[in-house]
This record gives sequence, structure tokens and C-alpha cells, in this order.
Amino acid sequence: MTQARETVTFKPGEVILYPGVPGPRERAYRVLKGLVRLEAVDEEGNALTLRLVRPGGFFGEEALFGLERGYFAEAVTEVVLEALPQEPSPEVFKELAQHLAQALAGSYRRIERLATQRLKNRMAAALLELAETPLAQEEEGGIVLHATHDELAAAVGSVRETVTKVIGELAREGYIRSGYGKILLKDLKGLKELAQARGEGR
Amino acid sequence: MTQARETVTFKPGEVILYPGVPGPRERAYRVLKGLVRLEAVDEEGNALTLRLVRPGGFFGEEALFGLERGYFAEAVTEVVLEALPQEPSPEVFKELAQHLAQALAGSYRRIERLATQRLKNRMAAALLELAETPLAQEEEGGIVLHATHDELAAAVGSVRETVTKVIGELAREGYIRSGYGKILLKDLKGLKELAQARGEGR
Repeated sequence: MTQARETVTFKPGEVILYPGVPGPRERAYRVLKGLVRLEAVDEEGNALTLRLVRPGGFFGEEALFGLERGYFAEAVTEVVLEALPQEPSPEVFKELAQHLAQALAGSYRRIERLATQRLKNRMAAALLELAETPLAQEEEGGIVLHATHDELAAAVGSVRETVTKVIGELAREGYIRSGYGKILLKDLKGLKELAQARGEGR
Repeated sequence: MTQARETVTFKPGEVILYPGVPGPRERAYRVLKGLVRLEAVDEEGNALTLRLVRPGGFFGEEALFGLERGYFAEAVTEVVLEALPQEPSPEVFKELAQHLAQALAGSYRRIERLATQRLKNRMAAALLELAETPLAQEEEGGIVLHATHDELAAAVGSVRETVTKVIGELAREGYIRSGYGKILLKDLKGLKELAQARGEGR
């Protein structure tokens, strides 16, 4: 007896999950197609990206364990999800544990950056991470990223005004070219060096 | 046929795991007794606490999945560990996934604090977290925390000099009393309010 895989589709910008204690009918998801952004939003409406989930990755695992959810999950592109059953198979729990172990390692790198790096170095790291998502396209002259300054602020944990200054600085120094809602990554090697440099953030 | 549970013991201060790609004989662990600290250490020797693992929690899961480890694991108190088999049971994978989901939620709160709160607020949160570990003891007048300024710096992602200033400030304002290698938490309610307050960290 094979069980049919239950899939759901979301459009760009749609909210998939809200913060709070999951209800009894809420589900955990595996991303089959597209990009999902998990983010926290404070009282003033400032968003902070916590994790980007790509195909093969999971989110909403709180529903499996009765844990409180601290984030919104939003479809960045068109997204196709597999809704996991209430009692997933041992194989799925193993894959979920591996995904969470990787996500945790990623969040530790994030914590290190926030504790020790300046915003400019963290911005370089965020641009490189976004360059590996569907928000980026290869064009002549390099990789073009489609992202607003609000989205970049959420990615690095800052606000738009500050991000606009740092983006200007990176553009003047030749790492990027900045246009309306898009950024050309001109110097990938330089950005990688910036992302790896320790600042005096402490 | 029952399998004997394999346990190992470490003394306070001993390093249990080092950063790097796990070798074929390395194991993942479940904490049975004591407190384990996972930390990153930069080139100048500044430590940054990534996670505290209490009894029932897991660490070293990279060994199960062939992932690179980005942290040192150190015994804070005397520690008794269960070394997991190379192929744990489905039940253990499920428990591990739940632990990692909780650890991930904790690291998201940490990322939010680092992105949005001032050091003083983050220090209040760190003192309250440490108050729920074996480093704290109930004494007359409140909870006494046995921690050096270096350890507090690692907990909040700062350096000793800055921590000494903030601890002085918290003491002057009556939240704590500070002595050599120990801190009396005088005003738990006030510390909780500080820990929850949003600063202008951005």
C-alpha cells in the first residue's frame, strides 16, 4: 500500500506559517520546489531572516513536537511543498534530523558573524548566500541579485537606512553595482574575502 | 538481546570534541549527567558560547551525517555521556530531531537578540539562562552564579573588558551584586524585563 504524497502550492509573498503554538491540524513541510524564507518580525515591523529553506529542506517541524513556533514562513518564489504526515516514517525523521543539524550549523555561523563582524562584512556574506538562491540570475558581467534594501536589512539584521549606506560603500569600493531593486555582484572574490574577515564587531 | 549502553565520563574543563570533519570512529553523544558547552574560538582566543547542553540533550550529531563540526565541546561540570551507536535506532533519531528543533529555536532567539538588543539586555538574558544550569546555586538573598567575566563574554558574544563595564552598570542599578568569580542575581524580575526589552541595537 503506497501513500499518496500530499502537496501544496504557494505564490510569491504568501505567508505559509505564522508564529505561535501549532494547532492540532498544522503540519511540517518539505520543500519540493522554490524558496521559503523563515523570518522574525518585531513590533515596528522590522523583519529578520532566520533561515532560507531550499528544495530538500524542511520547516514547520514544531508541529511534530508540540513546540512553539517563533517565526513566519513566507514563499519567496512560487513554492511547492510536501505536507508531512502527523507521524512521519523513521526515514523522514532521519532526514529531518540531518537537515536540522545543517540548519543549526548555519545559525552558529550567523551568531559568530553577528557577534564578531561589522555590518559591511556581514552584508558581503548575505549577498553571497542570496547569490545561491532563485533570487539571483547569471547575467553579463556577473550575478544579478533581485532584492530590495528592506530584504537585505532582514538578511543581516539591520534596518534599511543603515543598509543603504553600506550598499553605497560596497558600490564605491567596486565590489557591487547597485540599481533599483537589483544588485550586480562584480567582485565575487573580494566579497568572499570580506565575508571571511573578522571585524572589530565586539 | 539488549545492547549495553556505552558511557564515557569527562572532568570539568576537559575538551570532548574538536572542530573539523569527524573521523570514522567519532561518535554523537547524549548527555546523561552534567553540563556541556559548545563554543567557537577565534584566532585571538576569544570564546563564543553557541549552546549549553543539559541532561537529555544531544551534541556531536555531525558524526552521524558526515558534516563538518564548527565548535569545541567542553565539559563545564563533571559530565557523563552516552556514546550513540553509528546507526542509532529510529526512536533515537526522532529524539535527536526534537532536540535539534529546540536548539534551532534557541539559536534563533539568540540571533534576534544579537541583531536587535544592546549588550546590557543580552547580558540579562545570559545571566538568566546560566541561572538554570549547575553553575548556579540558591543561596540566601537569591541565586549565585559561579562564572568569570571571560565566561560571561563568551555567553553574550563580547570581550572581558566590555563585560566588566556592563556588569558594573547592572550592579550599580541594583540588578546584581558582583564578587570575584561569582554574581548574586538580586532582582530576577528586573533582569527578566531587561532581557525582554528591545534595545536600539540595530
